[in-house]
Amino acid sequence: MASAPKANAVVGQAGGPTAVINASLVGVVEEVCKHGEIENLYGAVHAVRGIVNEDFVDLKKLSVEVLEEIANSSSATLGSSRDRPDKEYCERIFDVFKKRNIRYFFYIGGNDSAHTAHIINLMAADVGYEMRTFHIPKTIDNDLLVTAHCPGYGTAAKFVACALMGDDLDNRALPGVKVDVLMGRHAGFLAGASALGRQREDDGPHLVYLPERNVSLDKFLGDIEDVYRILGRCVVAVSEGICDSDGVVWAEKLAKEREIDSHGNIQLSGTGGLADFLAAQIKGRLGAKRIRADTFGYLQRSFAGFQSAVDADEARRCGREAVKSSMTEQNGSIAIKRLGDGDDYAVELVRTELRNVAERTKPMPDEFINPSGNGVTQAFVRYAMPLTGGLPKTYFLGNHRKLQAVT
Amino acid sequence: MASAPKANAVVGQAGGPTAVINASLVGVVEEVCKHGEIENLYGAVHAVRGIVNEDFVDLKKLSVEVLEEIANSSSATLGSSRDRPDKEYCERIFDVFKKRNIRYFFYIGGNDSAHTAHIINLMAADVGYEMRTFHIPKTIDNDLLVTAHCPGYGTAAKFVACALMGDDLDNRALPGVKVDVLMGRHAGFLAGASALGRQREDDGPHLVYLPERNVSLDKFLGDIEDVYRILGRCVVAVSEGICDSDGVVWAEKLAKEREIDSHGNIQLSGTGGLADFLAAQIKGRLGAKRIRADTFGYLQRSFAGFQSAVDADEARRCGREAVKSSMTEQNGSIAIKRLGDGDDYAVELVRTELRNVAERTKPMPDEFINPSGNGVTQAFVRYAMPLTGGLPKTYFLGNHRKLQAVT
Repeated sequence: MASAPKANAVVGQAGGPTAVINASLVGVVEEVCKHGEIENLYGAVHAVRGIVNEDFVDLKKLSVEVLEEIANSSSATLGSSRDRPDKEYCERIFDVFKKRNIRYFFYIGGNDSAHTAHIINLMAADVGYEMRTFHIPKTIDNDLLVTAHCPGYGTAAKFVACALMGDDLDNRALPGVKVDVLMGRHAGFLAGASALGRQREDDGPHLVYLPERNVSLDKFLGDIEDVYRILGRCVVAVSEGICDSDGVVWAEKLAKEREIDSHGNIQLSGTGGLADFLAAQIKGRLGAKRIRADTFGYLQRSFAGFQSAVDADEARRCGREAVKSSMTEQNGSIAIKRLGDGDDYAVELVRTELRNVAERTKPMPDEFINPSGNGVTQAFVRYAMPLTGGLPKTYFLGNHRKLQAVT
Repeated sequence: MASAPKANAVVGQAGGPTAVINASLVGVVEEVCKHGEIENLYGAVHAVRGIVNEDFVDLKKLSVEVLEEIANSSSATLGSSRDRPDKEYCERIFDVFKKRNIRYFFYIGGNDSAHTAHIINLMAADVGYEMRTFHIPKTIDNDLLVTAHCPGYGTAAKFVACALMGDDLDNRALPGVKVDVLMGRHAGFLAGASALGRQREDDGPHLVYLPERNVSLDKFLGDIEDVYRILGRCVVAVSEGICDSDGVVWAEKLAKEREIDSHGNIQLSGTGGLADFLAAQIKGRLGAKRIRADTFGYLQRSFAGFQSAVDADEARRCGREAVKSSMTEQNGSIAIKRLGDGDDYAVELVRTELRNVAERTKPMPDEFINPSGNGVTQAFVRYAMPLTGGLPKTYFLGNHRKLQAVT
């Protein structure tokens, strides 16, 4: 391995923003400032599009105070993009890299972004252009390979957990059936997080449906009916990616107008269609009871001032680690390795090859899903709870009224 | 005025829960404990229904620690109800009051609950039953008469403000049109709160539509087109209660299946119908741009662990004040009086007659709405901002790229 070249660097933020993707960016900036090998650090405005358009921000000029404000702000402060560079696009990127002596490329994003970094890394190798290409993981879906969990997920999980804690208390106060549709196209990690705030035996969500387990409408309605019969109420968390018994995504079946993004993904978020459909079905099955359905939408990734401290810290460390690794390695994706779960939670950061993370996604493992396919296990709670940085305690008096009733 | 009777008391929580309705309940409990006139304090489980069913919790038995946990928990810890007592229902309530020597009735709720309290107060006077009836204000809509603002609103406003701050940053990162549908059946206070987090000149929401100003679909779409042409993006906050130019609520026009609650209110929340309709209209007008729409739903009133400190404190003080007033007055509703706005924010609590608060609601005053009817004024910001207890600061680098661009 050649020693780290003295050259310029580019960093970009790609794909759907999260609450801590800026923490990763700030991690990159503060670590770059420690390494004389990197002269200028260009922030690419709107990701790869900013590179080809040479729309850059000089990140070394930002004060420590501004960097802290950025690290605390949700969303991608440089702007994002869903462009997926093809060969011609990558050639334009290289033209800019060569012109500006850019030999470090840090790309914060999900599996699509890792794929972009992978392609660029291969092209650089092909043409003998010495450069260091690093992917820094980011998703709220938590579906990246290799890494034990993904920066961005912990805060989204905290949001979903707090939302369901409040929603369950609301449902206790005015009982009925409540359906909450949650993000997570291919993986149930975020829908599963809805269960993290449960503190009492009869706390909701009472049912959690994940993309990893197909469910027929009949089974779905039967499950709700069973809970409703016992508790007189039912709170249901549903992933936007749940599939019918034939394996087809319910939301796809429902979508009359399908909007497909440049990665071939059908739009599942930003519409209340699935929630409204499910509410109508439940109303049909249970009769004229109080049925409500909400779709949490973009709040899950964007809500301001609500970071998980653990998540923000890890995101920042991943940014730093990418820069450190670039001093000795040609390419890589930063991954989080678990050293302990639950109360013994601890992690270390490791490097993996870009190709190990590119393109594909990871579902929830079987041990996190209950045998009925309508809930999560304690193993999942031990896995996910530490990432939230802790949840508030709640109290509901109605639970205790048998004990404390006035006779 | 007779001296305060030595007797028992009942407290109930009615209508849609808020994040601080439990703080008001705890205020009642802690103040009752200071007054020997009140022997037992019964918490009515599910409001008036708990009274007629004699389903009570002995609130004096709760420890200080449990009371603090309750005060911090969102939703109505005693359970709520949307029952609106008629004459026969009230007679059953009196039977229980007489049987248990209940001569203090504290009822935490909105204008419907104030009306219930008013009726019960009149019936007690009619039959010469000496009792004290007090309403403690609670809404997220902030639409109660007399009081300058309403406990519950400040926290909901904080939630909506943080949601829009994050959503606007998200929209900057991946530009397009974003529509957010907010609660507020008759009043635009909550939709207006979407603007509280704006920190930069081009921050969204760029348009805010309120129930107080009718808007045609054509004007609505034209406004969005104008903003989109200038900024290349647009964030729009829409109250669920907005009306077409003919004064008919849009959501009503759209509702195929209308669910009407026991107060004759049509269900506007718990469905994504309005948001999806508006998104489709915008898509039709602007072409195939990135259009997304979210309906925030019950999160606005129930999200756990997210109280505004100012709101929680005032809610608790209103609970205490009702008990204090009951020692010297026959009936009343507690109201908040403003002594100053903005940085000089200060309040005092006053008592008003139940009849002044019962039934009717209050719209946003004209001075809070901009002349175009699609935004709020600085006067509104000075009014509403203190109630949030403060909002996080955010940062977006894209704003500054003209200044800091690498040339």
